[in-house]
Amino acid sequence: MAKQKKQPRPRAETPKGFRDYFGAEVETRKAMLEQITKVYHLYGFDALETSAVETVDALGKFLPDVERPNAGVFAWLEEDDQKWLALRYDMTAPLARVFAQHRNDLPTPYRRYAMGPVWRNEKPGPGRFRQFYQCDADTVGTASMAADAEICAMLSDTLEAVGIPRGDYIIRLNNRKVLNGVLEVMGLDEGTARDAVLRTIDKFDKVGESGVRELLGKGRLDASGAYIDGVDLTAEQAEPVIAFLTSKGADMTATLENLRAAVGGSQVGLEGIQELETIAKLLDVQGYGPDRIEIDPSVVRGLGYYTGPVYEAELTFEILDQKGRKRQFGSVAGGGRYDDLVKRFTGQAVPATGVSIGVDRLLAALAAKGRVNTAPAGPVVVTVMDRDRMADYQAIVGELRAAGIRAEVYLGNPKNFGNQLKYADKRASPVAVIQGEDEFERGVIQLKDLVLGAKIAENATLEEWKSRPSQYEVARADLITEVRKILDADHA
Amino acid sequence: MAKQKKQPRPRAETPKGFRDYFGAEVETRKAMLEQITKVYHLYGFDALETSAVETVDALGKFLPDVERPNAGVFAWLEEDDQKWLALRYDMTAPLARVFAQHRNDLPTPYRRYAMGPVWRNEKPGPGRFRQFYQCDADTVGTASMAADAEICAMLSDTLEAVGIPRGDYIIRLNNRKVLNGVLEVMGLDEGTARDAVLRTIDKFDKVGESGVRELLGKGRLDASGAYIDGVDLTAEQAEPVIAFLTSKGADMTATLENLRAAVGGSQVGLEGIQELETIAKLLDVQGYGPDRIEIDPSVVRGLGYYTGPVYEAELTFEILDQKGRKRQFGSVAGGGRYDDLVKRFTGQAVPATGVSIGVDRLLAALAAKGRVNTAPAGPVVVTVMDRDRMADYQAIVGELRAAGIRAEVYLGNPKNFGNQLKYADKRASPVAVIQGEDEFERGVIQLKDLVLGAKIAENATLEEWKSRPSQYEVARADLITEVRKILDADHA
Repeated sequence: MAKQKKQPRPRAETPKGFRDYFGAEVETRKAMLEQITKVYHLYGFDALETSAVETVDALGKFLPDVERPNAGVFAWLEEDDQKWLALRYDMTAPLARVFAQHRNDLPTPYRRYAMGPVWRNEKPGPGRFRQFYQCDADTVGTASMAADAEICAMLSDTLEAVGIPRGDYIIRLNNRKVLNGVLEVMGLDEGTARDAVLRTIDKFDKVGESGVRELLGKGRLDASGAYIDGVDLTAEQAEPVIAFLTSKGADMTATLENLRAAVGGSQVGLEGIQELETIAKLLDVQGYGPDRIEIDPSVVRGLGYYTGPVYEAELTFEILDQKGRKRQFGSVAGGGRYDDLVKRFTGQAVPATGVSIGVDRLLAALAAKGRVNTAPAGPVVVTVMDRDRMADYQAIVGELRAAGIRAEVYLGNPKNFGNQLKYADKRASPVAVIQGEDEFERGVIQLKDLVLGAKIAENATLEEWKSRPSQYEVARADLITEVRKILDADHA
Repeated sequence: MAKQKKQPRPRAETPKGFRDYFGAEVETRKAMLEQITKVYHLYGFDALETSAVETVDALGKFLPDVERPNAGVFAWLEEDDQKWLALRYDMTAPLARVFAQHRNDLPTPYRRYAMGPVWRNEKPGPGRFRQFYQCDADTVGTASMAADAEICAMLSDTLEAVGIPRGDYIIRLNNRKVLNGVLEVMGLDEGTARDAVLRTIDKFDKVGESGVRELLGKGRLDASGAYIDGVDLTAEQAEPVIAFLTSKGADMTATLENLRAAVGGSQVGLEGIQELETIAKLLDVQGYGPDRIEIDPSVVRGLGYYTGPVYEAELTFEILDQKGRKRQFGSVAGGGRYDDLVKRFTGQAVPATGVSIGVDRLLAALAAKGRVNTAPAGPVVVTVMDRDRMADYQAIVGELRAAGIRAEVYLGNPKNFGNQLKYADKRASPVAVIQGEDEFERGVIQLKDLVLGAKIAENATLEEWKSRPSQYEVARADLITEVRKILDADHA
């Protein structure tokens, strides 16, 4: 072999903003995604898995005159054909590409779900990573409000399927067209004032009616003492926004009536209200009442591409924040109708609507509710008392596995028995199996119940262990029965 | 909104060498990975999911003086800290990085499994993609041959769990040390002659003993008529290689005896034979006989980093190739012991052994054996006869889902009923539910058995459908019972 140049050792670290997931973290997420998949599948949605890599052209939203189009995405130039490729930043852009590419072969409407990692080339922060999971469901190719209603119902079923009980969440529904109607009435169809009003509406949840009044007017002193400039509307000018935001009534009928007043004669506004009414009626007949899904005019949803109904799922239970203060958990999923994404490719508008679940936030919510299974799922550890009997220990572990019990032989250096028990501890093992020369001769085996047992003393000898009540001898022939007893008791 | 510059439409296509996976393709793979996971988990292996992105430094194997280190990987330069990042090209390099980074927190030995996509920046070809799945299991931190034996046993269990019956596969085991011993005896410790001999050994399966003799000597005319140059050894010099390759005996004991003769007095060779003997004994006591795992000296495994036992799983049943000729399916998994990967980071050698399953090849094998479930998993499609009754159709579909039956309402334009049936056909739907004004009034519903039914005629009218025997009327109240009858019959 050729002699190599001496190089400095590489650092063993993930790139900034990326992380590893171990054991239970992986399994818990997989289990939750599986529960979500089952609901999506039941609703007739089909799986789609696109590759992680797309052409930058297909992803879109990038300026053609930027030399290196890496704002927001991880991108690189293919040397042979001088094309820019990039990691997908969401599941919607690849869906639009797939539908445009395969539209003749796909059923229309096309219901699809997709789950997997997406990548954002953004500054990482605490709890903010540059690779994270999304779990989307979209219906492409129908303008029917029944598609939007269906996704709201499915989102409700999904949250309950993963373990968020009814009453702990609410799906809030709005329509961009209603909002556009209000802005039309105000004469704010376009421009910076319109954007400022939209940003203010988005703050309604936090600052309330009086806060929005201030922000639409001269401005407001916020909680931190900073002065936030206002939009500088007169009280009269601001009135339609206030009417809109406070239009939530005792029931959907009342809310829709109030909204109708808020949009006045705006055609697009009335169209939006009609759409909300259709969705509400479809949901009502299926029993999705205001305890699960409600019309809430304060829902805006940031993304510019929404063109009709928008919806989001909010968890309404309280958790303690890092400073010990109670706060509501907030949004875990959101989406809406977007009609122009496929048009980029084909020139023809294709109506579509869909939802994206924030997988990590939903997992965090389940953990906060104690809904994540934290029981030790570690394997039974068969310790090695006599290195020459490895074949016998393998036979024991084989028997356990054949009975469906997760089990492993200790494969480190068996010299120090304490290390083996420390290892079992690190593995969250429920049972250690111990069999030395003496036990082999007598046809017995020692079982150590590690869940019941006290914290394992370091460098404990076998004799110390034998005196503990959580360790006892059983007939070798009863191995499976006796291990099962311990496992059943641990999970009782 | 500001006026936008007119741009050419982007092409709706995947980048070269990438592809999309639809519906059943995604589900079939997921189901197989789930079966594999269950076996790995049973053996005490823990999940690990690293990010797709690693620093190029951590991935290693790249020359430091290459300006753009993208030979083989997809890499890009981080602008803020001038670090090269890349997509992982396998699961082993990230494992070495993780173990070096977290070695104080991880149990030792550390058994981990990982499954997910890897990326190779290689020239794509037919059936050769630049993103594909790997599914690995490795044990890090033990030199014990019991770890290698365990992985071979687990691989055997895994193949049977996914549906490859015993007798249709064989796990072939060898040891690099034995091979090194043979080369040592020949005086070929290093250099180009050694590499040429290794490449020749790798061809034993294809060209047989006489072919290897020719290739070690003057060369050989291959089947296509091309002349392949030989290594230019004398017959005497080549003898140890031939003895090694033909050392497979009637049983393991005989094979080991033959190998012992082949390595002569080589210390490393004898060590390798001792290791094989230990593994064989451990497997034997667990009942993994030569019908599942055998020692086969012709197994080399390409990767340079293997240092001890190597193993691969070969499927032994015959399939027809594209030209209709019978051929054996070949290798679907392989691995071995590698002791130096963690050392790159820490300076300390950490022994490790592991296997990688070629997910796509294994899926192809299962498909070839007819082991992949191809029954239609499409949803029951509730057709729309009367647009104003959408709420009623939603109620029907809700009832079906509540009973656990996959179902959807047709959400396209309902005007042309034939299109609805074409849609149901494209969805591989087992049942279409039909309810018009008349059926509503009479409290009945039409069920169309689409699996039994003949191929759907285009633009058929409802009346035509009613005359077919596979379509019949049932009481609305019996919907669930009657749909279940059809589904059960379809799967019988």
